Amino acid sequence: MRIPILKLHDTLLISIQWELDDQTALQFQEDLLHKIHETSARGVVIDLTSIDFIDSFIAKVLGDVISMSELMGAKVMITGIQPAVAITLIELGIRLEDVLTALDLEKGLEKLQRELED
Amino acid sequence: MRIPILKLHDTLLISIQWELDDQTALQFQEDLLHKIHETSARGVVIDLTSIDFIDSFIAKVLGDVISMSELMGAKVMITGIQPAVAITLIELGIRLEDVLTALDLEKGLEKLQRELED
Repeated sequence: MRIPILKLHDTLLISIQWELDDQTALQFQEDLLHKIHETSARGVVIDLTSIDFIDSFIAKVLGDVISMSELMGAKVMITGIQPAVAITLIELGIRLEDVLTALDLEKGLEKLQRELED
Repeated sequence: MRIPILKLHDTLLISIQWELDDQTALQFQEDLLHKIHETSARGVVIDLTSIDFIDSFIAKVLGDVISMSELMGAKVMITGIQPAVAITLIELGIRLEDVLTALDLEKGLEKLQRELED
């Protein structure tokens, strides 16, 4: 299984709607970085609205893919983080300081678009 | 495997990026119809840009899901149909007369938005 990555103007959209297994998470990491390179995307929105739990491996992969995307020059926005996911991320010390967050995909896209215009 | 369905304002976005097996296609049909009901979406965009081949079963499921979505009151837009996919759809007699089409996701979303405003 691979997670589809949608390109909308200069932004990549990903909605993670089911719990990822380790292999899928690593494949996603690779696919996303390739897609950023291929499309010269300036922004990435990862929507986690439907995810109510993440384990420590997935949390680490997520933290890594965010750092890697930013290294490549793309601004990352995470939307729809649920309480349990927020708790896991913070407890594991996943650094999300430089990451934009928003309540849902619509608000996230708008906020990211404003950031990219600045 | 299930195909993620993104909600953006009153539109649902789906990008099919890998060949579907029969089970996934049927699951997608069910998921999409439920999501239309749940979100009261007025439009659906299905992006096929990355698909360069569909078999007759998938073509039929796609034709069905389009008719079903329209029955439920959602306008359907298909984007990025490649030559071989267009050939398969027409040769199998899948009726796409009432369906909007566009070259890519960006153009499709714009066109659908204009249709919905009319």
